[in-house]
Amino acid sequence: MADQKPRRPKAETPKGFRDYFGAEVTERKAMLDKIAGVYHRYGFDPLETSAVETVEALGKFLPDVDRPNEGVFAWQDEDKDWLALRYDLTAPLARVAAQYRNDLASPYRRYAMGPVWRNEKPGPGRFRQFYQCDADTVGSGSVAADAEICAMLADALEVVGIPRGDYIVRVNNRKVLNGVMEVAGLSGEDKEAERGIVLRAIDKIDRLGVKGVRALLGAGRKDESGDFTKGAGLSDEQAQVVLGFMDARRDSGAATCARLRELVGASVIGGEGVDELEQIAALLASQGYGPDRIVIDPGVVRGLGYYTGPVYEAELTFEILDEKGRKRQFGSVAGGGRYDGLVERFTGQKVPATGVSIGVDRLLAALHAKGRVAADTTGPVVVTVMDRDRMGDYMAMVGDLRQAGIRAEVYLGNPKQFGNQLKYADKRQSPIAVIQGGDEAVKGTVILKDLILGAKIAQGASLEEWKNRPAQVEIPRADLVAEVRKMLGQ
Amino acid sequence: MADQKPRRPKAETPKGFRDYFGAEVTERKAMLDKIAGVYHRYGFDPLETSAVETVEALGKFLPDVDRPNEGVFAWQDEDKDWLALRYDLTAPLARVAAQYRNDLASPYRRYAMGPVWRNEKPGPGRFRQFYQCDADTVGSGSVAADAEICAMLADALEVVGIPRGDYIVRVNNRKVLNGVMEVAGLSGEDKEAERGIVLRAIDKIDRLGVKGVRALLGAGRKDESGDFTKGAGLSDEQAQVVLGFMDARRDSGAATCARLRELVGASVIGGEGVDELEQIAALLASQGYGPDRIVIDPGVVRGLGYYTGPVYEAELTFEILDEKGRKRQFGSVAGGGRYDGLVERFTGQKVPATGVSIGVDRLLAALHAKGRVAADTTGPVVVTVMDRDRMGDYMAMVGDLRQAGIRAEVYLGNPKQFGNQLKYADKRQSPIAVIQGGDEAVKGTVILKDLILGAKIAQGASLEEWKNRPAQVEIPRADLVAEVRKMLGQ
Repeated sequence: MADQKPRRPKAETPKGFRDYFGAEVTERKAMLDKIAGVYHRYGFDPLETSAVETVEALGKFLPDVDRPNEGVFAWQDEDKDWLALRYDLTAPLARVAAQYRNDLASPYRRYAMGPVWRNEKPGPGRFRQFYQCDADTVGSGSVAADAEICAMLADALEVVGIPRGDYIVRVNNRKVLNGVMEVAGLSGEDKEAERGIVLRAIDKIDRLGVKGVRALLGAGRKDESGDFTKGAGLSDEQAQVVLGFMDARRDSGAATCARLRELVGASVIGGEGVDELEQIAALLASQGYGPDRIVIDPGVVRGLGYYTGPVYEAELTFEILDEKGRKRQFGSVAGGGRYDGLVERFTGQKVPATGVSIGVDRLLAALHAKGRVAADTTGPVVVTVMDRDRMGDYMAMVGDLRQAGIRAEVYLGNPKQFGNQLKYADKRQSPIAVIQGGDEAVKGTVILKDLILGAKIAQGASLEEWKNRPAQVEIPRADLVAEVRKMLGQ
Repeated sequence: MADQKPRRPKAETPKGFRDYFGAEVTERKAMLDKIAGVYHRYGFDPLETSAVETVEALGKFLPDVDRPNEGVFAWQDEDKDWLALRYDLTAPLARVAAQYRNDLASPYRRYAMGPVWRNEKPGPGRFRQFYQCDADTVGSGSVAADAEICAMLADALEVVGIPRGDYIVRVNNRKVLNGVMEVAGLSGEDKEAERGIVLRAIDKIDRLGVKGVRALLGAGRKDESGDFTKGAGLSDEQAQVVLGFMDARRDSGAATCARLRELVGASVIGGEGVDELEQIAALLASQGYGPDRIVIDPGVVRGLGYYTGPVYEAELTFEILDEKGRKRQFGSVAGGGRYDGLVERFTGQKVPATGVSIGVDRLLAALHAKGRVAADTTGPVVVTVMDRDRMGDYMAMVGDLRQAGIRAEVYLGNPKQFGNQLKYADKRQSPIAVIQGGDEAVKGTVILKDLILGAKIAQGASLEEWKNRPAQVEIPRADLVAEVRKMLGQ
């Protein structure tokens, strides 16, 4: 008989998923805690919905995807209902706002932080589970709600460590865009394809420049590789309206609004959009948020189809080096806007809502790029084991240190080879190894070995600076906590 | 043609799932943060794996369920691989320990906190998504690792607000149980069914008493409803061994161990188990964890089949009233033990591991029962809107308050009916309403309306105590922040 061994399972994350270790977890948590502090101060309450929703409740609002149920992880439960993992935090909010509409305070300000799942092709840096951090106000049609969220977004960026001047919150209004379309003769239902091309073209201004966008508004554009992108087929006159709009940003919010009114004032919806932008700018100014932090900018489009009014985006303006070593602006880390249709799906009643979503991984990457992640990477003090039979003594040492609030471990591997213990301490980025052999035990002493020295020199400190620092000291066992504290600079 | 309206989606959580609002989120978070602080001090590093694993990697270790893939939410992805939501935090740890075995420090101490999912029939208080909070040490065969986790568990319970004396960590050893089986003549492979019945009987001692357990060890037991449970069919002599074991707990760990040695010393594995319990007791004693906190207790069985050595359980000993108004002990909130087979599944090499899981919802319920959840339920200061055209003024007020670190909101609903604004403030549990009508605006004043008064009286304070407290005060606008601070007692 053949000796068939059962196949071993592969120890792998599923494709597109990843694990987060140590500092990766605590850094994100520290950042989200700070943001939650700002949201709390603004009166927003936390909401945690479950990861699983009915496919029916999620609907087909998956951003940038027109196909229902594609892009989500879904399965059929034993009752034949389709369930799915949430793909964002807005769809569950809409469900909650409808389900609890008689119980929740209205307007309802809520924030939510947690993972979402996308059943999309994974790529480098593109995962199928990632964090979102949202804040929304449901039940207020006032642009004061939009202005508040923009101010809160600016505060959140500053509190996590993006200094003023390194970010800008840009505000626009879908109604102004709709007005531009109207003035350009693109407002009919039969013009939807053209409007889509125009919106995508506006969104690409940073990358393609005016000439590239002009081509896309007209006949089309051939890129460097020779690929042709079909254009919107606009006449010169029509294209001029759109280009004028993109060029409408002025030095002050008031000037920008005045220019926009010249361009779209002929459209009722466009005029309404400019009114709203003016109100937002005034409300922000009354709280002291000037154009150094929040600016009216016709360049903001936002991809999502469900926005109906103000849209906003936070951009980090400092430069980083891209993968090819070229300087570029860090770019967008958060965005949102007003959407009035999501709750209506459930109840049939229009419920105005506005909210923002922060790209958690992007913002964390920005903090890393700026060196603003103050992660305490110091490992625990490691108490080594010289004599296996005296494990009680070593555990008493580690117990004393922990009671004093000092992060500490006793070595729990096979203690036979002392070298392995020091290698372990090194891997743990331990600042101090505590050693007590038989001689020290008899004398009632312990040896503290300074492991910071090596690390500091590795970080660029000169040996000179450290030469008077002893590599190890022998101290009375009774002074363990006090001496460790001193060595840690506490 | 019939006018068919599209059916509206139901605004409902899927069966067995729920939403967490406001304080429900922050209370749990505060508790987990405190526990994480203890784990950090003990040298444990956070690990966050994704919610999704391959079914292959999860294996069939679902507690109490022998059927592979049942009890989990699973689906087939586009590559025909089966994926599933994790059902606990131990299976993903085993996968990580195997996947990163060349990179992780060994021993590897890690903690994990997060939701897990069970595809089980939901019931009252029984949800299909719930939090777990685990700490494990992978790669150490030393009982010092088990002792450390027991000490850490005691510290964690105290730090969240369970005072010493209100909890007990009970420690046993599967090897001792195996020894008991051996001595009772139940060690053969053909005796697995009997062993199962014996283990379940031991686990029921609290509910059934000695007589009931005795019946289950022998021919079987008929319960009050007349239902018959088959027994293990043990002889009097065999049953006596098991009952003697269950009665082996003595006043001190040493005395309990001595009694256990009398009972199972004839078994090699049993003797080894007693040795380990003695070592654990000694290691804990050397750190000052006496039997008032951690006790050797032969009554601990733990359901999971994968435990191979020490097992432990934290029980809360204070009494609560059950749903029928009867007093009963709160009971178990955490448990764990040593398991050496989980990583071996992947690598073929035995990797010793030990760890504990805290039942997050149970522990939180216990803190509520003890009144130890210090939730700050005070809502935000609410700035009301008397004059829609002066929204900028109101937003400036709320801005000033927020800048000063005071939680505050401006009313964003329709301001027409002032009564609705006060109702809103009430629903938000607001301590203070800020009011500025046209007259006050001219005078440069605001009115602060004390909403704490009503709340305090509702909480039982007499009107007498509060009669000298004015229901509202008119103050200069410039003093807004200072006066609100004073009123809040800050």
